[in-house]
Amino acid sequence: MLDLIAPLVVSNTTKIVLISSDGLGGLPDPDTGRSELETARLPHLDRLAARSACGLIRHVAPGITPGSGPGHLGLFGYDPLTYRVGRGVLEALGIEFDLRAGDVAARGNFCTVDAQGVITDRRAGRIPTEVCVRLTERLRDIRLPGVDLFVEPVKEHRFVLVLRGAGLDGRLSETDPQALGKAPLAVHASDPAAARTAALVNTFVAEARRRLADAAPANMVLLRGFDQLPALPRFPEVFQLRPAAIAAYPMYRGLARLVGMEVLKTGSTFADEVATLREHWEAYDFFFLHYKDTDKAGEDGDFAAKVEALERLDGFLPAIEELRPDVLVVTGDHATPAVLAAHGWQPVPLLLWSRYCGADAVAAFSERACSAGSLGLIASQHLMPLVMANALRLTKFGA
Amino acid sequence: MLDLIAPLVVSNTTKIVLISSDGLGGLPDPDTGRSELETARLPHLDRLAARSACGLIRHVAPGITPGSGPGHLGLFGYDPLTYRVGRGVLEALGIEFDLRAGDVAARGNFCTVDAQGVITDRRAGRIPTEVCVRLTERLRDIRLPGVDLFVEPVKEHRFVLVLRGAGLDGRLSETDPQALGKAPLAVHASDPAAARTAALVNTFVAEARRRLADAAPANMVLLRGFDQLPALPRFPEVFQLRPAAIAAYPMYRGLARLVGMEVLKTGSTFADEVATLREHWEAYDFFFLHYKDTDKAGEDGDFAAKVEALERLDGFLPAIEELRPDVLVVTGDHATPAVLAAHGWQPVPLLLWSRYCGADAVAAFSERACSAGSLGLIASQHLMPLVMANALRLTKFGA
Repeated sequence: MLDLIAPLVVSNTTKIVLISSDGLGGLPDPDTGRSELETARLPHLDRLAARSACGLIRHVAPGITPGSGPGHLGLFGYDPLTYRVGRGVLEALGIEFDLRAGDVAARGNFCTVDAQGVITDRRAGRIPTEVCVRLTERLRDIRLPGVDLFVEPVKEHRFVLVLRGAGLDGRLSETDPQALGKAPLAVHASDPAAARTAALVNTFVAEARRRLADAAPANMVLLRGFDQLPALPRFPEVFQLRPAAIAAYPMYRGLARLVGMEVLKTGSTFADEVATLREHWEAYDFFFLHYKDTDKAGEDGDFAAKVEALERLDGFLPAIEELRPDVLVVTGDHATPAVLAAHGWQPVPLLLWSRYCGADAVAAFSERACSAGSLGLIASQHLMPLVMANALRLTKFGA
Repeated sequence: MLDLIAPLVVSNTTKIVLISSDGLGGLPDPDTGRSELETARLPHLDRLAARSACGLIRHVAPGITPGSGPGHLGLFGYDPLTYRVGRGVLEALGIEFDLRAGDVAARGNFCTVDAQGVITDRRAGRIPTEVCVRLTERLRDIRLPGVDLFVEPVKEHRFVLVLRGAGLDGRLSETDPQALGKAPLAVHASDPAAARTAALVNTFVAEARRRLADAAPANMVLLRGFDQLPALPRFPEVFQLRPAAIAAYPMYRGLARLVGMEVLKTGSTFADEVATLREHWEAYDFFFLHYKDTDKAGEDGDFAAKVEALERLDGFLPAIEELRPDVLVVTGDHATPAVLAAHGWQPVPLLLWSRYCGADAVAAFSERACSAGSLGLIASQHLMPLVMANALRLTKFGA
């Protein structure tokens, strides 16, 4: 798809705003039969839907629940089945670690082992984050020949391990046996080219065990999701856009940086994000705005909180429309139905407004209404071509 | 797709009419909120839509604006991303040049160069077509070893260059630097197999320059879009149909001939085309009818003219229905919304009538109405299988 698009791209001065309301899609409340979007009072989104082309986005494939990584890569135009990002890399992006090409990253857990070295708690009793910070300091100056080592705390028992140096390879098995009563596993290279990296990681684990011997319950580490940065075509080059990402949460800044967007400094609220958008309106022509509250409420299983989060988002629409973008898109990276209290596989409502979007009969922004929209049910990686077309930034294919 | 269909095809005596209204799809007039189709009075198309299965056709991919080549190949059953037709070939088809397998065709421009050989006008001031005709005569008898050469005038500064002979290869770079102030480029082979063809083209260009030295402003040529006829499965064999193409414009006759349809002699109006259809009704079982006026009005940005063109098309429907086709399809090769004054990426309305088409709630032939149709939003190359099924010309897949 990107190979098809890139040669068709032309530049102009149009401006595009893509709002990703995280976990946007929902499911009906069993008592009312209405989803979060159908329950919320959304005068601005409904008005916009009536003037927009609407549809549904499917992020990976029918029945597949997307994580935040694949969910956003799709919105950015990358087929999430082609461009895969491993857990270690996502974890590093999530703390905005400056991961570089060739680095090998892994997700780490502090865990508890007994005197025989057998795991008794895979999460070390979810130690407080402050303890995690102190323990990563013990591991940080472990020396490995020919590589730089980074051990970065995340939250509670979680940390990120990064190896940096020439010739590293992330094709490694995991040390976490995913069960109690077993000893952590040695790392194996799943490709011969990764043999040296496997040996380095095993050296690190042995030394970590020595340094943590007196730190029970966090007296050992488990490592999984080894990976390296994928080779992604750069968004600004493929689409010839000056893209800016505005996101309060580090994971989404990391994902935007991964594809080459410029990440703008912003505050911790969506009001801050909209202010940042207004401030930088002239300097960029593509803005990715991330709204987290819908996902958080959905993950908590809090239907009413998700309805309120949607209504708050709705209230910001006029301030964004006031900037007069040429293309305005509202959608999400995946569903997070409150009744699931987790990410869902359901397609996500999509609203796309431009002067050339055409009309359909949809006059409300909800899963049910958008399913009758003129955009139909599209794969997430097809959104960017549609956006580009509506911005008059694509020439025709074939004479 | 064609590999799936071909073994399922069975013959019978049903008759199919496919009307391609060029540039059919439109966009709402900002003042009225109604598209060209929604503005036009279309009693016959609306009546037919009410009895038909309706939907939308997407020709290439979301957001991609199709040219006439990919647009029609899709309607004929060929995935336009798999079967690509280069600009040189399309240009040759557009003047109904009898292009043969192995021929290398290129689009040519007469241009102006200064005493240093630097381009000062890429279109030679758009010389009148009569001048173009005279200048192509100067170039036509250039001799190249082992190949026949054709230099055919098109319109204004444009011409087609065709090399015919054994072992030619169209994988060549262009001579047009697409900028003023630069000299035309030498042709390079982008594959080693094309080295000899590159040398031949460079010899042609050097000789053309000599022969045009006194012909300012048209004192040099630029060549681009080198290509050879693609190897397309033949329509009559894949679908076991006796297909006839009825089109007043040479480009569409050329595209039909490209897939192996028989091209019927007809006049310059759609009334002539319908008369030709009636005359040849017994001799064929698949008729491709091309209606150009909708595209022309759209390209001119003339909303009212497009509305009138649609109403004229509507008026011809009864004469076509009188022939009692078993399957009648009305759709288009791409949208040409008057508000864009150009081809658009929007899906195109589709109406398919047969005794077995099923019913849906659509009772008007427009973008908005058809988006709620039972055929949904389909890829253009899926139309022919649907048509064949409705003609009872496909057996089941699997026992």
